[in-house]
Amino acid sequence: MKRMWFRLALASGLALGVLAQAYAEEGMWTFDNPPLKDLAAKYNFTPTQAWLDHLRLSSVRLNDGGSGSFVSPDGLLLTNHHVARLQLQKNSTAEHDYLRDGFYAATEDQEMKSPDLEINVLVGMKEVTERVESAAKGIADPAQALKARQAEMAAIEKESKDATGLRSDVISLYNDSEYWLYQYKAYTDVRLVFAPEEQAAFFGGDPDNFTYPRYDLDMALYRVYENGKPLHTENYLKWNSKGAAPGDLVFVSGNPGSTSRQETMAQLLVERDIVDPDFLELVERRIQAEQEFARQGAEQAQKVDSSIFFYQNDVKAIAGEQEALEDKGVIAKKQAEEDELRAKVAANPEWQREYGDAWDTIAQVEEQAKPELTRQIFRRSGSQLFSFALEIVQYVAEVKKPDGERLPEYHEAGLSSLRFQMLSPAPIYPDVEKLDMTTTLKLATEKLGASDAYVQALTQGGSIERAVDALVDGTKLYDPAVRKALLDGGEAAVAASTDPMIEAARRVDPIARAQYVYLRDHLESVLQLAEEKIGKARFAVYGKNAYPDATFTLRLSYGTVEGYPYNGTQAPPFTTFYGLFDRSAGFSNKSPWDLTPKEAAALGRLDLATPMNFVCSDDIIGGNSGSPVVDRNGDLVGLIFDGNIESLAGDFVYDPEKNRAVAVHAAAMMEALRKIYGADALADEIEGKQ
Amino acid sequence: MKRMWFRLALASGLALGVLAQAYAEEGMWTFDNPPLKDLAAKYNFTPTQAWLDHLRLSSVRLNDGGSGSFVSPDGLLLTNHHVARLQLQKNSTAEHDYLRDGFYAATEDQEMKSPDLEINVLVGMKEVTERVESAAKGIADPAQALKARQAEMAAIEKESKDATGLRSDVISLYNDSEYWLYQYKAYTDVRLVFAPEEQAAFFGGDPDNFTYPRYDLDMALYRVYENGKPLHTENYLKWNSKGAAPGDLVFVSGNPGSTSRQETMAQLLVERDIVDPDFLELVERRIQAEQEFARQGAEQAQKVDSSIFFYQNDVKAIAGEQEALEDKGVIAKKQAEEDELRAKVAANPEWQREYGDAWDTIAQVEEQAKPELTRQIFRRSGSQLFSFALEIVQYVAEVKKPDGERLPEYHEAGLSSLRFQMLSPAPIYPDVEKLDMTTTLKLATEKLGASDAYVQALTQGGSIERAVDALVDGTKLYDPAVRKALLDGGEAAVAASTDPMIEAARRVDPIARAQYVYLRDHLESVLQLAEEKIGKARFAVYGKNAYPDATFTLRLSYGTVEGYPYNGTQAPPFTTFYGLFDRSAGFSNKSPWDLTPKEAAALGRLDLATPMNFVCSDDIIGGNSGSPVVDRNGDLVGLIFDGNIESLAGDFVYDPEKNRAVAVHAAAMMEALRKIYGADALADEIEGKQ
Repeated sequence: MKRMWFRLALASGLALGVLAQAYAEEGMWTFDNPPLKDLAAKYNFTPTQAWLDHLRLSSVRLNDGGSGSFVSPDGLLLTNHHVARLQLQKNSTAEHDYLRDGFYAATEDQEMKSPDLEINVLVGMKEVTERVESAAKGIADPAQALKARQAEMAAIEKESKDATGLRSDVISLYNDSEYWLYQYKAYTDVRLVFAPEEQAAFFGGDPDNFTYPRYDLDMALYRVYENGKPLHTENYLKWNSKGAAPGDLVFVSGNPGSTSRQETMAQLLVERDIVDPDFLELVERRIQAEQEFARQGAEQAQKVDSSIFFYQNDVKAIAGEQEALEDKGVIAKKQAEEDELRAKVAANPEWQREYGDAWDTIAQVEEQAKPELTRQIFRRSGSQLFSFALEIVQYVAEVKKPDGERLPEYHEAGLSSLRFQMLSPAPIYPDVEKLDMTTTLKLATEKLGASDAYVQALTQGGSIERAVDALVDGTKLYDPAVRKALLDGGEAAVAASTDPMIEAARRVDPIARAQYVYLRDHLESVLQLAEEKIGKARFAVYGKNAYPDATFTLRLSYGTVEGYPYNGTQAPPFTTFYGLFDRSAGFSNKSPWDLTPKEAAALGRLDLATPMNFVCSDDIIGGNSGSPVVDRNGDLVGLIFDGNIESLAGDFVYDPEKNRAVAVHAAAMMEALRKIYGADALADEIEGKQ
Repeated sequence: MKRMWFRLALASGLALGVLAQAYAEEGMWTFDNPPLKDLAAKYNFTPTQAWLDHLRLSSVRLNDGGSGSFVSPDGLLLTNHHVARLQLQKNSTAEHDYLRDGFYAATEDQEMKSPDLEINVLVGMKEVTERVESAAKGIADPAQALKARQAEMAAIEKESKDATGLRSDVISLYNDSEYWLYQYKAYTDVRLVFAPEEQAAFFGGDPDNFTYPRYDLDMALYRVYENGKPLHTENYLKWNSKGAAPGDLVFVSGNPGSTSRQETMAQLLVERDIVDPDFLELVERRIQAEQEFARQGAEQAQKVDSSIFFYQNDVKAIAGEQEALEDKGVIAKKQAEEDELRAKVAANPEWQREYGDAWDTIAQVEEQAKPELTRQIFRRSGSQLFSFALEIVQYVAEVKKPDGERLPEYHEAGLSSLRFQMLSPAPIYPDVEKLDMTTTLKLATEKLGASDAYVQALTQGGSIERAVDALVDGTKLYDPAVRKALLDGGEAAVAASTDPMIEAARRVDPIARAQYVYLRDHLESVLQLAEEKIGKARFAVYGKNAYPDATFTLRLSYGTVEGYPYNGTQAPPFTTFYGLFDRSAGFSNKSPWDLTPKEAAALGRLDLATPMNFVCSDDIIGGNSGSPVVDRNGDLVGLIFDGNIESLAGDFVYDPEKNRAVAVHAAAMMEALRKIYGADALADEIEGKQ
């Protein structure tokens, strides 16, 4: 899944939007607007409100970038191994490589606390469009209007947080045509119960990533604790151990990260010609450096294994998107859609007056934005420590301001989640810090010139190597207590600090702020108004039979368990353990198609005909990793972990014939827990046999 | 494999040629010019003349359109099930469906004679270029020159046949730049020993056809008899039951049917725009009609099963070629090759004078040929009986002429093979005859108009249905004895015949002859001279480090057992029996992915890790079906049965990265014979354990 890319892409701050007409089974629907009409017409199925609420409350979002679901009344949480892998790595030591070897806590006291994992359950949703829009009413200047809206959003969030104690986010949907307050119950005591070996979860490695047929046990189980005890909840999904069958209607409930389906042609072309190639270069440079580093030894390899994993994932995802954007058919389809909407708008004088100029405005903004985008992509430090330092410097300054005037990351409602992350006890490795920082700053120098203000603020005219050594060797920010003391000491403590990272952050802060303000006031504010016009034009022309672009918030997708045309023939609806042994043997058990010792040893015990992975036509994207797949009864039949190679175009366009979500089958997870990992107690708990 | 297409394509009578520069592992080499330099350089391997001779003499060509090899000193002949399927069908009855159920003769007396199968072993090769070219020296008129060359070729064939008793063919290679006399030992007593069930041989059916990974037991074993006794021979391939391993150098010895790699751009575009679409329409129309017929019952289905099989094969092959020809990369590459050659020719005044006009000449001929090509494709009867009738009418007229003046099919040297086919006792079904004839003539009427002379000659102004009923119901040609009597009775008997098929053939004969003569004298003769110029230009520019286009004569390919990039990841070098059970289960054991009862029953006995199919980079094409794959020792390690979907472009271009031949693994054949079919005696004979 394209997790990292999702994170990076958010930084580029471009459009959200709404789709004109949904194709068969296309759509990432908000829970307030499920596609009831289509479901009734195509599947003769109408979920009740209780069905929808139960599924929503059983679904979770992980701050590591994925999704998950509760699967027992005692807080068991199912997600992907690749969503859990950052926590696995953070908990690993030279003695215990949990990422490589897996983990199983047979009893509660063996369960392993995650250093900085927060999970969110969406407990409340309320539309606040009128209030947000009223705040900017009558303000002609786009920059001032945007500020006013942001201040109002912060106020709504704070009110909610104060009143309920819940994490409260105001999000915009449908090209900023709607604003919603989403309230989350947050949990931060999340302990690992089970993870298979990385090789079992990620059989086929980077080559098989984003493809199907697959044979992966990409699962992990956490237990969520509250007040030091396992969470007791009624909101969990019953496990259907028979799992999904071909032709079944199945739903996916999860948090797709970001899509660009509503972007205009001008935006797509900037994505294709500027953003994607720049990101690819950045990520490929980092992979190259880290792979070289990993070759130095097992200890080094362990430190960068996950990082390389996510970067390779990004490369494949971005390359797939690029391919889609270079496909004449895709471009022609997008152009035709845009032409149709514009023609319908133009045919109605009132619409034309209200919305008609939006496309040209966006094209102008995109043209203006080009150098800024490149600057934004390459102005990175590559250092976790420096990120902490900059957050500390900004944090102490921002929290003194009225909530509505702060930088968006420091709104009151989000502070506790932010602090949780900033104070993570997860280890930070000096050698990796130096490696990534040097690589990233060298690339920044190549791309932006040695005289770039950001680069200069870090290097102060010296060599990159010398500056990086001084920063990484001199800082004390490795220790979360040091970070906490600075946060708690406020502006005075930060101003007085002689920590070299903090000093560097103080130099970078004004540059970062200036860039943010320029983007916000000159580009984003204009863009947002224009996008809102297009969103409204769509509502006017097509009505609200549509879903908004993905925003890493909870969505419902539906579809059918079914194969698709591939490789000149058909891909099967599901694979089996037979296939795992076939593909491994076909490559002579060579990496990345080697069996783990536990898998090999289980051969005689396994029922090889057990379904292992399957595909369904549900519309998903990066961020959906770990989402539950449920049947009509709302019971769990599978676990999303990937999309097929054809789904990489899904950022822009959903192809009902070939776009497929890839999931671990419920039966495979039971078979593996019992017969490969001897985790019968855990399997019993999940199947309600305790 | 594209067998039928190969047959149809031959009818369109277009170019042969020579490749400029061979890419890595590209090439279908004649046994007189093996790629010794490349083999030594890349694999450090130099086959001896004895190695080459043994492989050539162990290889056979089947007149059913495929290839094969001797695998025991007692005449056991290995080929594909799909090469044997016509004979299986011809031997089947309402009681015994050998195609569906398979066949195994545990003892020699149970072996089942094939009605009309002839196999040829290439025992002699001799270049005769000078003699053929001398015959036309000084003749300015292209049509007269062609006639002179054809007469000389017939004379050479007859001399050889008279002197040796061998089947003797003069073939042209390298765009008619070389002529060779090929002498074959022919065998016509060929008995079936073993065939698996069609479903085991063709697991995955039409969808999986031309794809990989595959799980097919596409094998059959015949025994060749001479004078009523099993042929005793030293020329057979030793069986290597370990089979091919990844990275191995492997050779394929077989008879690729036809390639168009040396065609000019003008020719390729006519192929793309006229020939391929017309053939597709013809074949799709026939499939539609036969599938409708098959739905009427099991008996009907059995009669057209093979025909549908070959037609579907054609559709997939032609569609794949079309896709290649519509691929801008392929077209650009071909254009660049042509541009380079033309530029080099133009840069040398002598070459330019000799060869420079050839490309434009070909473009003019192709333009002229367009309506003729369409006419040739749709002027078909669709009736086996009518084909016999026309052959009889032409045969009795032609054999009276001097050999050199006959239509090419009736040259003395080929008569015994032709008569063997014409007198086949294989059953002909009136209902299928009517169906195919009606379908074909209706399409001819649509395409050429009801007033087309060929259509008129068959329908005589009446309805197609009435004409077909009269012909098929009235003829006695079902009986091979009736055909023989007419052949032996000569012109008088044929002229006196009132058999309606013979009468129709007498009406069609002058039309067919006129068309042949027009094509030969006005198009083919000019084309051949121009192609010969291009062939000579290539020799002049690039030397003879090249192989000729395929001509359904024996060729040697070499390559490596290796996977290739597919579906966003890698295809494995080989598959295993595990994969058979995986793919079947993944489709819930539904057709065409259902296991046969014998396969299912063997599950407990089979070693599932046994390699089943594998891929190698050897350059092959339709006609290579059934070719042996041999290792450095010349031992048999596999059996070619298909190419991957990427190889469908192989008619025009070989892509070393993705073009792969697909073979049944030697270990799988032994495992299946012993554990699925209980054919231990046969397996022992093959492994030399008797």
